[in-house]
Amino acid sequence: MDARDVVMRHWAAANARDWDAFAALLADDMLYEVPQTGERVRGAAGYLDFFRTWPGDWQAEPVRVVAQSDAVVVVVDFRTPEGVETGIGIFAVADGRITRVTDYWPAPYDPPPRLSAFVERT
Amino acid sequence: MDARDVVMRHWAAANARDWDAFAALLADDMLYEVPQTGERVRGAAGYLDFFRTWPGDWQAEPVRVVAQSDAVVVVVDFRTPEGVETGIGIFAVADGRITRVTDYWPAPYDPPPRLSAFVERT
Repeated sequence: MDARDVVMRHWAAANARDWDAFAALLADDMLYEVPQTGERVRGAAGYLDFFRTWPGDWQAEPVRVVAQSDAVVVVVDFRTPEGVETGIGIFAVADGRITRVTDYWPAPYDPPPRLSAFVERT
Repeated sequence: MDARDVVMRHWAAANARDWDAFAALLADDMLYEVPQTGERVRGAAGYLDFFRTWPGDWQAEPVRVVAQSDAVVVVVDFRTPEGVETGIGIFAVADGRITRVTDYWPAPYDPPPRLSAFVERT
């Protein structure tokens, strides 16, 4: 199972709330971190608990994947009844297991003034 | 020149303000987009102008790279006299040129309440 497969299974298991399959993809000493908040979870048991206790009804749909042999970036549409947020996860993978997840949640913001006349708004 | 090399040269040329080298890496019909703001720049000339007119003194230091044959994700520390921001660029590359850049700027935020006791703050 290559790194991309591992991370695709991670999201499939999470969406299915199949926690046995989810746990099987994690290195025991894995690290989860959110640089924007300084949050961190150490260890597979903690990461599993973090996911299991995520409140509400949610589904994470991978919309873009870039993968090399030992790392995978996934952009997800994180869907809840309240709407859709964008998440970007950078996964390090070794020996078929996830060893590190760095998670970003880029929220909408008002664009700054731009000096270039080429910048459009969609 | 593989996709990773193209994107590394993109940042090196940008940091050096070597706009000829920079332009040589761009597909004429490239697209730049910032999903968080809805900003968009169409075409290599526009993207070049967008970079040339970026105000102030800045350097973008790649701190993490994940690359496959046709796409590269780069996390940069974008350094200005005011401090450091994190940028995440997803680059599509074809025939040695950049065809699309999707840019994210995930800013710090206060973490939400968490139900898991395993979540620490650094």
